[in-house]
Amino acid sequence: MTKVKPKKPRIRILLGDAVSLGPGKIELIDAIEKTGSISSAAKSMNMSYRRAWNLVDSINHDFTDQIVVTSSGGKGGGGAVVTDMGLKIIERYRQIETKALKGVMQDLEEFGHYLSLKSSKSE
Amino acid sequence: MTKVKPKKPRIRILLGDAVSLGPGKIELIDAIEKTGSISSAAKSMNMSYRRAWNLVDSINHDFTDQIVVTSSGGKGGGGAVVTDMGLKIIERYRQIETKALKGVMQDLEEFGHYLSLKSSKSE
Repeated sequence: MTKVKPKKPRIRILLGDAVSLGPGKIELIDAIEKTGSISSAAKSMNMSYRRAWNLVDSINHDFTDQIVVTSSGGKGGGGAVVTDMGLKIIERYRQIETKALKGVMQDLEEFGHYLSLKSSKSE
Repeated sequence: MTKVKPKKPRIRILLGDAVSLGPGKIELIDAIEKTGSISSAAKSMNMSYRRAWNLVDSINHDFTDQIVVTSSGGKGGGGAVVTDMGLKIIERYRQIETKALKGVMQDLEEFGHYLSLKSSKSE
């Protein structure tokens, strides 16, 4: 993640105990769609390949259908394709996030006043 | 976290790059308020003391005022008190979450249909 501020609030959706879906995973799927490989997507997000691969693995387990299909080997080390289900997930997530945030933007801005500027952790 | 299903969707709020506030931290603050110590709160949530302590440390850094004040030593190993700001944060977070979820419950339910049951990870 590059540091750009001020940033708008985002939402991570927690579904049951099992699935957590937020901007990180969604942006990764989007970046894979755009770049055609996990390694290029990871690079574009300043993320390690290992972390990106783990997230993709987690995403593929989270849904009934595969979200990212990888092909290994060949020159360039193989590519990755986002499935139709993957594209659908991105779209639906963004709709839900926008809708959920819409009603609470004012509250979140007020909430932001309690926040310390000394914090620099990303978890 | 104990496994109870079906569970309602939850939301984690991501504010800037720095702060992520979700049910885990909020429930921990609440449990500290109820039990009077980090160790008892951790135990009640099936969380390790170390993890609870790290979360409390992170929470205290996230906000302008302290959220949890600890006292060390004494019999029982010291206690922890949630400040007025801490209580306010819990209340505000819950209001925001309820409000944000309200408008997207139907969407989240539909989204849930895409989810795989094989997933058992909690991150």
